[in-house]
Amino acid sequence: MAVDTFDTYLAEKTAYIEEKLIPALEQQGVPQALYDSMKYSLMAGGKRLRPMLVLAVLEALDKPLERGVPFAVALEMIHTYSLIHDDLPAMDDDDLRRGKPTNHKVFGEATAILAGDALLTRAFSLIAESYRNHQDVSALTTVNLIAELGKRAGATGMVGGQMADIEGETKQLELKQLEFIHEHKTGDLLIAALRGGGYLAEATEKQMELLTRYGYCIGLAFQIQDDILNVEGDASQLGKAVGSDAERQKATYPGILGLAQSKERVAALITEAKAALSAAGMEHSALSPLADYVRNRTK
Amino acid sequence: MAVDTFDTYLAEKTAYIEEKLIPALEQQGVPQALYDSMKYSLMAGGKRLRPMLVLAVLEALDKPLERGVPFAVALEMIHTYSLIHDDLPAMDDDDLRRGKPTNHKVFGEATAILAGDALLTRAFSLIAESYRNHQDVSALTTVNLIAELGKRAGATGMVGGQMADIEGETKQLELKQLEFIHEHKTGDLLIAALRGGGYLAEATEKQMELLTRYGYCIGLAFQIQDDILNVEGDASQLGKAVGSDAERQKATYPGILGLAQSKERVAALITEAKAALSAAGMEHSALSPLADYVRNRTK
Repeated sequence: MAVDTFDTYLAEKTAYIEEKLIPALEQQGVPQALYDSMKYSLMAGGKRLRPMLVLAVLEALDKPLERGVPFAVALEMIHTYSLIHDDLPAMDDDDLRRGKPTNHKVFGEATAILAGDALLTRAFSLIAESYRNHQDVSALTTVNLIAELGKRAGATGMVGGQMADIEGETKQLELKQLEFIHEHKTGDLLIAALRGGGYLAEATEKQMELLTRYGYCIGLAFQIQDDILNVEGDASQLGKAVGSDAERQKATYPGILGLAQSKERVAALITEAKAALSAAGMEHSALSPLADYVRNRTK
Repeated sequence: MAVDTFDTYLAEKTAYIEEKLIPALEQQGVPQALYDSMKYSLMAGGKRLRPMLVLAVLEALDKPLERGVPFAVALEMIHTYSLIHDDLPAMDDDDLRRGKPTNHKVFGEATAILAGDALLTRAFSLIAESYRNHQDVSALTTVNLIAELGKRAGATGMVGGQMADIEGETKQLELKQLEFIHEHKTGDLLIAALRGGGYLAEATEKQMELLTRYGYCIGLAFQIQDDILNVEGDASQLGKAVGSDAERQKATYPGILGLAQSKERVAALITEAKAALSAAGMEHSALSPLADYVRNRTK
């Protein structure tokens, strides 16, 4: 798949999934402010990368996309809740996200906390309700999806990574600790997307392992690239100030490894990600240009 | 079951479930502060009423108690997370809970938010993992448990009730609005406990409906009794100041209905709860003295 074809692919998948988000929220019997707050952040944009990974795995294994929709939407809900809570004054205290006021700036802190809680809860009930009587997804697969998502999103996954990140802000981190943060804070939810797609597409155990490896590699590459862009990116493209990490004395890959070695690490991770895809027989899927996209992105 | 027998029963069940809580937390790979914070609130005491309801339904239908443990623990995790988040400065801003410093006073706000998020997430993964290969609980039942819990704990349930409660603080509430708050903020999780017990014990559809009715009645009776005790209770037994609701101009049942009519409403609800139990063939179970306990409690 050529790069321009991949850009079109990505835009199509983003549009496809965006249509599915609001209908997956419950509205009846929900206090209006809570519903509005959940909807506001869910529809605040973004690349919808996690849903895209679910759909790409289904495509790679010749399964219908529709099958992945509830799980893909649930992932986006969990990603969204994590952003709402991360932006809170007690956490990162951010006023803006993707150029728009953060949830608590619009709805107040109490509502933002509850909207996050409700999105997280809805993610699980959506999966359970949507696949409960699904003709192509067994109850056991549904239970596997929930176990996977819970493990990757909770204390052993994303929430644990966020905790380590907060603890690390006041310390001089070693590379191992920085990798722990990124593996869990970002990587685990990407892996959940890929493995969830694998469960839904009835991937083999070997393919599941390879998808996990692919997810680990692109997740980490994504973060290192993020750090690199913060040093040498174009502020107008990034939408945030270049050099802000160094100013905040935040631990980064370029700060620990240097810029050249950081770039080498990204390249090695992308090579490994693609090798995993080939071994899984998925090298012709959209997951392949996606790996290049992670490496080549400038924003 | 006589009252003193029921007190013993309650103490036994509390002890039984307390032993199961810590082993259900994940520790490996979890940042220490996050684990400590989750454990602190999970072990901070309480009547363990929701787990007890699960176990009582299993007993009433002659099923082994063990079967209910993961679901019971998950409910207690969700109840605990809701207390951690409710106590936050942006919400009720409480420094003490059951005589101990609240989670954020001990661990800081960021950790308290994350500990709540992690407990909520763990509740779902615990159910999925524990029943995944359970010899007596099918995958479909597991999916039903998760759908039930998500619906009752999220925007259409407990979180929605909490949102309505916060919105109501600045308004003159009508009885209907007050009932909405209590039905969802407290009632829904009790109903989830009873219905979850019903799913696990293979209750009939009719029994499920009656358990739902029983839960609605005791949940509302519990709240009205709470309001009554706030007017005429004994501060030393309650552990909080009598008359504090009136002082805060909080909407209460005695405030809207008067004290006598509030007491009548409690009595009617308990009568209805017991009628539902009889119709379900569960009148000889611990759920019957539990209804009296709700009515007669003085703290």
